[in-house]
Amino acid sequence: MQKRLTAEEYINGIIAGNRIILSRAITLIESQLENDRAIAQKVLEGILPHTGGAVRIGITGVPGVGKSTFIEAFGKHITSLDKKIAVLAIDPTSQRTKGSIMGDKTRMEELAHDSLAYIRPSPSGSTLGGVANKTRETMLLCEAAGFEVIIIETVGVGQSETVVKGMVDFFLLLMLSGAGDELQGIKRGIMEMADAIAITKADGDNNQKAKNARMEYVHALHLFPPTPNNWYPPVLTCSALEKSGLTEIWQVISDFKVQMLQNGFWKKNRQEQSLNWMHDYIKQYLENQFFNDNVVKNNLESVSSQVLSEAILPIQGANILLDSYFKSLHH
Amino acid sequence: MQKRLTAEEYINGIIAGNRIILSRAITLIESQLENDRAIAQKVLEGILPHTGGAVRIGITGVPGVGKSTFIEAFGKHITSLDKKIAVLAIDPTSQRTKGSIMGDKTRMEELAHDSLAYIRPSPSGSTLGGVANKTRETMLLCEAAGFEVIIIETVGVGQSETVVKGMVDFFLLLMLSGAGDELQGIKRGIMEMADAIAITKADGDNNQKAKNARMEYVHALHLFPPTPNNWYPPVLTCSALEKSGLTEIWQVISDFKVQMLQNGFWKKNRQEQSLNWMHDYIKQYLENQFFNDNVVKNNLESVSSQVLSEAILPIQGANILLDSYFKSLHH
Repeated sequence: MQKRLTAEEYINGIIAGNRIILSRAITLIESQLENDRAIAQKVLEGILPHTGGAVRIGITGVPGVGKSTFIEAFGKHITSLDKKIAVLAIDPTSQRTKGSIMGDKTRMEELAHDSLAYIRPSPSGSTLGGVANKTRETMLLCEAAGFEVIIIETVGVGQSETVVKGMVDFFLLLMLSGAGDELQGIKRGIMEMADAIAITKADGDNNQKAKNARMEYVHALHLFPPTPNNWYPPVLTCSALEKSGLTEIWQVISDFKVQMLQNGFWKKNRQEQSLNWMHDYIKQYLENQFFNDNVVKNNLESVSSQVLSEAILPIQGANILLDSYFKSLHH
Repeated sequence: MQKRLTAEEYINGIIAGNRIILSRAITLIESQLENDRAIAQKVLEGILPHTGGAVRIGITGVPGVGKSTFIEAFGKHITSLDKKIAVLAIDPTSQRTKGSIMGDKTRMEELAHDSLAYIRPSPSGSTLGGVANKTRETMLLCEAAGFEVIIIETVGVGQSETVVKGMVDFFLLLMLSGAGDELQGIKRGIMEMADAIAITKADGDNNQKAKNARMEYVHALHLFPPTPNNWYPPVLTCSALEKSGLTEIWQVISDFKVQMLQNGFWKKNRQEQSLNWMHDYIKQYLENQFFNDNVVKNNLESVSSQVLSEAILPIQGANILLDSYFKSLHH
């Protein structure tokens, strides 16, 4: 059995860039045990002054777009520039299938063996909000451990993009050529979040199709209203197979950073994200306290069935539960 | 000065279909005064057994699609079938401009003078959730007053569609011909909510363009995954000017009702809406209580600035505020 580390041992190990301690710290953060949460908070507070230095990149795209292949190739490009990269994932589906953990390891085998790269599969959790909190905290640990680029990967089909957008500096949307966005199941709202679009698999016979798709997306993006940060999301093509377009994508991200640092949006965006994180956490906590309260739990079923049978209004039901909750708090 | 009515007078007046009392009851519901809220709740409880009888239709579309012209023509069609129709609006923008109140009256002048129709402008309110609650309650009052069709109108640009979708049986999306959905600013998520799409202004020179647009949307909708209620949203064309297509739209809504009553989805949908309403109200209430708490108010600014300056983590900030809140509740 492993010796339990103190908060200070975790902090020093992380700051020294010790991978084993980093991994154990992430496991600590993902733990649901009350004891572990207390140490985890201390660790986070200790590493806080060492965080914030990485470029945080969110990457999304529907299944089939070649996300892991792209991230592997792109990650290898980053490490070839002698930069340390960490790849995290937010994948709400993995809670059910438990498939992505094995998947992550086998999918990016080359990157996983790169000494400058660190890959961590999705944390499990019952809510997307819970998973998101752990991913945010893991990101901070990785920054303290000296990673200069952090990629947060998500599947382009649900609410998780908004969550990822809320924790990164740059949001990259991967798209396939030869398919309208209808076919790709990408919601327009996700296109609106993108700081750049990259058309994947632009190789061999597919190259011309990718170029055509690029022009279509350039056109589509022109119809969008200008963004407050004065950035015009470029559309690029790339191939993980031929290792093409990766330099250009990294250049776009570097240009973005320079421009956003200059116009103040880099800092402004991170500050807004921090306040939103605080507010989200508060809302979630209030809700959890309420629905885990014993008085509420005891009444919820009967109140719900009265609402369902239209014996009472939803607001009456809410007020019955709220009254009993606040009364029990005062005792 | 008007004599104050008792809850019973309100209830009896509404059930008797008295328009003046209905209007006063809606004003009561929209009131922020504590006293008024108490009577309003009694009125709602009293009319509850008389609610639920109407077909609730949500209508959305971007500005310029001809929403009010359509609703006026469609409303006149409904009243020509000897059915009573109420038109309510959720318009978050009207809180700022205050323009829609006059607008609603002048926009639908013919319908406003129809003895079978009742038009009520958007309630004002500081949050979309607050406006939505009042609109839901107003809908119930209108049902108790004998209205058989209720239209809830919203502007197709923001979050309000989701809110409207959550309170209606049928969601109709109005679209213009001759413009891709990029140009119309309609988010794909809104198309996914639609139970039918109607292309407006299908008249004169525009007729062929409307037919072409119809085929495009038919094609686009085919790419969507099937809905759980087993309904395939049709795409229609219509003209408020030539009064064409209105019978067909009403027929679609009637067919929808028959099919959903048969497969049980009508009731299931309303039950889910009721539970969601209860949950939303609880969340909103918990959040309001928290952020209006004096202890929280006193600490919020200093905690926020510590988070912004990265002196503390967002979760630490949240915990400071949550601790002080729950301590003050116990006193």
